Amino acid sequence: MFTYTFQDRKTQSLYLQLYQHIKDDITGGKLPPGEKLPSKRAAAKNLGVSVITVENAYAALQSEGYIYSKPKKGYFVSEISTLYHAAVQKAEPAQVHLPPKPDYRYDFTSNGIIPENFPFSVWAKLMREGFHNLKHDLMMPSPAGGIPALQEAICAHLKQFRGMDIVPEQVIIGAGTEYLYSLIIQLLGGEKCYAIQNPGYHKIHKIYRSVGVKTVPILEDAHGMSSAALKTSGASVAHISPSHAFPSGTVMSISRRHEILNWANETENRYIIEDDYDSEFRLDGKPLPALQSLDSGGKVIYVNTFTKSLSPTIRIGYMVLPPALAEKFYRTLGFYSCTVSTFEQYTLAKFISEGYFEKHINRMRNYYKKTRNRILEEIKKSPLAAISEVAEEEAGLHFLLKLNTALPDAFLKKKAAQNGVNLSFLSEYYLTDTAAAPPHILVMNYSGIPWDAIPDAVKALEKAIDQ
Amino acid sequence: MFTYTFQDRKTQSLYLQLYQHIKDDITGGKLPPGEKLPSKRAAAKNLGVSVITVENAYAALQSEGYIYSKPKKGYFVSEISTLYHAAVQKAEPAQVHLPPKPDYRYDFTSNGIIPENFPFSVWAKLMREGFHNLKHDLMMPSPAGGIPALQEAICAHLKQFRGMDIVPEQVIIGAGTEYLYSLIIQLLGGEKCYAIQNPGYHKIHKIYRSVGVKTVPILEDAHGMSSAALKTSGASVAHISPSHAFPSGTVMSISRRHEILNWANETENRYIIEDDYDSEFRLDGKPLPALQSLDSGGKVIYVNTFTKSLSPTIRIGYMVLPPALAEKFYRTLGFYSCTVSTFEQYTLAKFISEGYFEKHINRMRNYYKKTRNRILEEIKKSPLAAISEVAEEEAGLHFLLKLNTALPDAFLKKKAAQNGVNLSFLSEYYLTDTAAAPPHILVMNYSGIPWDAIPDAVKALEKAIDQ
Repeated sequence: MFTYTFQDRKTQSLYLQLYQHIKDDITGGKLPPGEKLPSKRAAAKNLGVSVITVENAYAALQSEGYIYSKPKKGYFVSEISTLYHAAVQKAEPAQVHLPPKPDYRYDFTSNGIIPENFPFSVWAKLMREGFHNLKHDLMMPSPAGGIPALQEAICAHLKQFRGMDIVPEQVIIGAGTEYLYSLIIQLLGGEKCYAIQNPGYHKIHKIYRSVGVKTVPILEDAHGMSSAALKTSGASVAHISPSHAFPSGTVMSISRRHEILNWANETENRYIIEDDYDSEFRLDGKPLPALQSLDSGGKVIYVNTFTKSLSPTIRIGYMVLPPALAEKFYRTLGFYSCTVSTFEQYTLAKFISEGYFEKHINRMRNYYKKTRNRILEEIKKSPLAAISEVAEEEAGLHFLLKLNTALPDAFLKKKAAQNGVNLSFLSEYYLTDTAAAPPHILVMNYSGIPWDAIPDAVKALEKAIDQ
Repeated sequence: MFTYTFQDRKTQSLYLQLYQHIKDDITGGKLPPGEKLPSKRAAAKNLGVSVITVENAYAALQSEGYIYSKPKKGYFVSEISTLYHAAVQKAEPAQVHLPPKPDYRYDFTSNGIIPENFPFSVWAKLMREGFHNLKHDLMMPSPAGGIPALQEAICAHLKQFRGMDIVPEQVIIGAGTEYLYSLIIQLLGGEKCYAIQNPGYHKIHKIYRSVGVKTVPILEDAHGMSSAALKTSGASVAHISPSHAFPSGTVMSISRRHEILNWANETENRYIIEDDYDSEFRLDGKPLPALQSLDSGGKVIYVNTFTKSLSPTIRIGYMVLPPALAEKFYRTLGFYSCTVSTFEQYTLAKFISEGYFEKHINRMRNYYKKTRNRILEEIKKSPLAAISEVAEEEAGLHFLLKLNTALPDAFLKKKAAQNGVNLSFLSEYYLTDTAAAPPHILVMNYSGIPWDAIPDAVKALEKAIDQ
């Protein structure tokens, strides 16, 4: 029979105290497996508690499997394996060692955004309006492809600004392009080989590798990804950025666009992923039409994101699927929940459809143009001018700075890091053929350098690569 | 020499008009490949426009690849492949045929939430405060695992309510559990075989299949997933919901938990995914400790979501990795951007750390308890009572309703659908061994049935399965 003492029931209910006592006796071995427990009535009487209290304690023990009941026979202690005793011994507190996070004064390796440039007040206003007017809609699960209001807003935007003749159902919303790539792989097939740009964006390569998909890096020439190399590569999908290749800055020529479209049209299972990541920020001249707008064969999957145009901290990207693939998406991947919250989908839909997005883009384009011009001027005024040459400065949020130096890229990069400046060289973006990589070319991502810090940033750059 | 006429430059700038004229002549064949264009100066004089206008038009044509320049020789028309002519012909407007969306009066097949139950005013208040106080932080990209404030809040919550002894760095945030599964597969390896519950949640099966991962469905007995079957299955990872299996409602016994932990500890590459999807809503008795809290070998990946506890339209889930896997995550998958926007991460962090989440859970637990009780009472009062028996009603947001009927499940399901009621039977959740599936057991997900509609919903149910 049990002999337990109880504390004030205000501290913990009696049934939980009893539960704990019995559990301790089971795990401690005092109540061995197979042992019959006293009946509820007997235990209640013996302990001076109500039958309900014993009943609740037994029920908790039973639901966790410490005891089991046999009809008309009562409750018995379960067989508990030995591992438990190891587990209840207090383990050392867990430690997780994270990779060190370097802290740079100036980072030219990736495109940050300046917090002040985000349209906080408009965004907050639209979100507030949504909370107020759309309570019901905000609680309805989003269709797999996104809410229709956002699909329509993006569709209208692409028609107007990218010359794309599409319908809203072709637009699929997701939590950033990285996530969308994984959907594309599921849609097209993970057994296919994917051609990627060389030099290219490391992350794309890492994503394909991480999900176990075969890639083949293909060198580019002055027209963009080599179509001759693509043809013999064995790839079925070409992942390219025709408007502005990263990091080379190459704009794919019209003839090359058609060669690659022709390649895709040769057999049924070939596709093109058009990664239009920074087309909004072509700073000079006319925006280029999307490759998608030339596609009459249903071969181009257009991918873009609001990460660069709005903020990297709002994780919204989208893809435009050819009609047949859109239907396949809803048929085979429609079971997925859309990865973007409805709150942000509705807010962004209004942000676009009420014209704020266009205004924001225009404002940012001017801001980046000014930033770029100021950086180029500062470079011109500095000793850097004598040993460098600027290239590919008209499109997108980076330019190339060719250094006249004999020092190896790795040495300069390290020296800059020691001076608090994070630099990347074009040669680092070669996934293969690294020997063929032209040395001494800096990839200058400038969007995250605050306006007032530009003179100092260029000075730091100059000092870092001072010979 | 060009002979173009221009419209009012207010309609379109002269350089764009010139660009369009020349482009039309190139694509129309009037200007054949290789043809030399007039010099900028000559063209300007001839057309009566400025040299700058011609320069801009040529630059636009060149950047798109329609023309190219040879140093000191001038501009020439490029070779354009034939496809273009096909592409510019106006295609039929795209059509995307979506699968039909059935509309039910009452849906007992999945757990919706009632919009009025979402804590709108608190959520909006916290988000507003964030916009006001955290402008800078909101614009800083989230680390791959999520922002520290949310990791800390979730860690503290799990310590307090699930008895889990963890550190914040073990908590990885993602846009819903579906997305997190794909990260887990990348972390553990897509070549492994994953054991899943049978009967089980179809979506989990679909996700594994969609990313090309091998699964083996394993039948459960009264204690949960069969450990004997698991041992001989060839699986390396067991995906289970020990607190409350869906849809059977089985709570895994302590002895089975230890058997499965022992199985995982037998060799280095075995793991357990603990899907704790609705543990917050155990309606009666003491909450069960998580399997994770018994794990001393670094074998359990704990996964949970705010989809059920807050709203399916806020896409935030998380996983708790054993320390060694957490380090591997940052080392090998740390290149991924976190898929949840910082706005919602900060809002949720405050929602938890300021105690609102606990209050909300308690409120919802009471609400669901009342809802369940009312549904059970209505069933008791109705003719259904005579032909049915309720089971597994104490945990989570569904219960089982065993029907005393001779009619096949598929027939009843169809009949109910014709009456506007969406039903699912336990037998539908058998991924294999469908012959062994017990018939006539309804899986009753009730969380989406509005309070006032309960009597009518039960009537509709009764009518639907009326014999």
